Amino acid sequence: MPHDTATGRVRLVGAGPGAADLLTVRALRAIEGAQALLYDALISTEVLALAPAACLKIQTGKRAGRTSMKQQTINKLMLRLARSGLEVVRLKGGDPSIFGRVGEEREFLQTHGVAVEVVPGVTAACAAAAQFGFPLTHRGEARRLLISTATVAGGEFLDASRAGAADPETTLALYMGRDQVQAIADRLIRQGRPAATPAIAVENAGHPDARGIPSTLGELAAVLDAARPTGPVILLIGDVTARAECATVVGAASTPRRASA
Amino acid sequence: MPHDTATGRVRLVGAGPGAADLLTVRALRAIEGAQALLYDALISTEVLALAPAACLKIQTGKRAGRTSMKQQTINKLMLRLARSGLEVVRLKGGDPSIFGRVGEEREFLQTHGVAVEVVPGVTAACAAAAQFGFPLTHRGEARRLLISTATVAGGEFLDASRAGAADPETTLALYMGRDQVQAIADRLIRQGRPAATPAIAVENAGHPDARGIPSTLGELAAVLDAARPTGPVILLIGDVTARAECATVVGAASTPRRASA
Repeated sequence: MPHDTATGRVRLVGAGPGAADLLTVRALRAIEGAQALLYDALISTEVLALAPAACLKIQTGKRAGRTSMKQQTINKLMLRLARSGLEVVRLKGGDPSIFGRVGEEREFLQTHGVAVEVVPGVTAACAAAAQFGFPLTHRGEARRLLISTATVAGGEFLDASRAGAADPETTLALYMGRDQVQAIADRLIRQGRPAATPAIAVENAGHPDARGIPSTLGELAAVLDAARPTGPVILLIGDVTARAECATVVGAASTPRRASA
Repeated sequence: MPHDTATGRVRLVGAGPGAADLLTVRALRAIEGAQALLYDALISTEVLALAPAACLKIQTGKRAGRTSMKQQTINKLMLRLARSGLEVVRLKGGDPSIFGRVGEEREFLQTHGVAVEVVPGVTAACAAAAQFGFPLTHRGEARRLLISTATVAGGEFLDASRAGAADPETTLALYMGRDQVQAIADRLIRQGRPAATPAIAVENAGHPDARGIPSTLGELAAVLDAARPTGPVILLIGDVTARAECATVVGAASTPRRASA
């Protein structure tokens, strides 16, 4: 796509869940053609290795507990790189439109005259479901998928009643779900989701070393705590997760089914 | 991955939203290596053309108003092809775990001793958001994404109260949304979602000829009716959709912003 090098262009690219072959072809081409790459902490080294050797690679952080660049700093950096005429790729885990701050970055860049293109990616819930063999919707069992975070701005918890998260026919996918699992599970149970609801925590969803930790809503926090995950975790809650096959994960270390439950 | 040719293997593969370069690399390789390809009606000719010339290609239908194979027929066909030792790829639009019947097909095949691998894909909501430049979540505006269909089994409508679809901080993505838009919009408004809520109907999301039809929840049905879509439609409802830029769609025919509203 032609763009004005005087004003520049930035592509906000979804890297998908981690494995390089789960990049879209469009994302792969963007990375291979990048002259400057700004990437989140969760982008795998396998994916980063696809960028040209001469490409300027800048980690922007954004991982719990680590120092990360302020959003305003990232914005200004992208702007400066784009204005200097470089092919700028901003690489985000999963899909950039879901918890990827694509709205803020896009708005900032466009306000400053920089063209923005967004390349979608495979989001973590889809990667986890494919890898551990359960569906996110299933006739007569799960009619809907709700993608949320456990906590929202200011540390406030998901209001399950308002968000419909207690609906037994809704599969709930909680992103960035490693912390405060007990609190969110308690809240969901109090708001009507049965403690016996099947649930699975997936660490490093979509990576070759992903780990599926099956449980129930009531036991999820204890089971996850015992598993001591170090990578990012997505929590999936709903009857469909009972179909997960944690012993037959493609390319992942075997984890016995319901071993810890 | 090695598999026993005596029992066979089937890969259930997400084709993403339509454009061939929005396939994942893993999906592309699966298609290029397929000996038998069973595909839904919505798979683009561009994607089908990636399969080898000698590959057996079978359309399974599944498009409104057209004759399509019964699920049981598709299941038996996959089983027969897998048992005959062919590399079988079952290709589905978007992500197979979301409204893709992957649970049913997987269960049937595994019951009959056939190994199943699922390859995730980019789902339509992510493709629509990327293409028309709006986020699905946005700080202080949309904290959640609810993916649903407008109607469920038996023609029953989405119960917005139970599913939390009236929550102003939830972006609602309604798949297979071309029909009964007036009825679902009326219901959402009655259940508390303001008629003035920004909304966009996206026809052929992710295809180069995608069309974004911006509106509000209250006017969505009339605007969509006037636009006479012929391709599949996804409805996105929520404040974030006001950020859609329908005049600057990458690779698509220009549609003036709010032209019909």
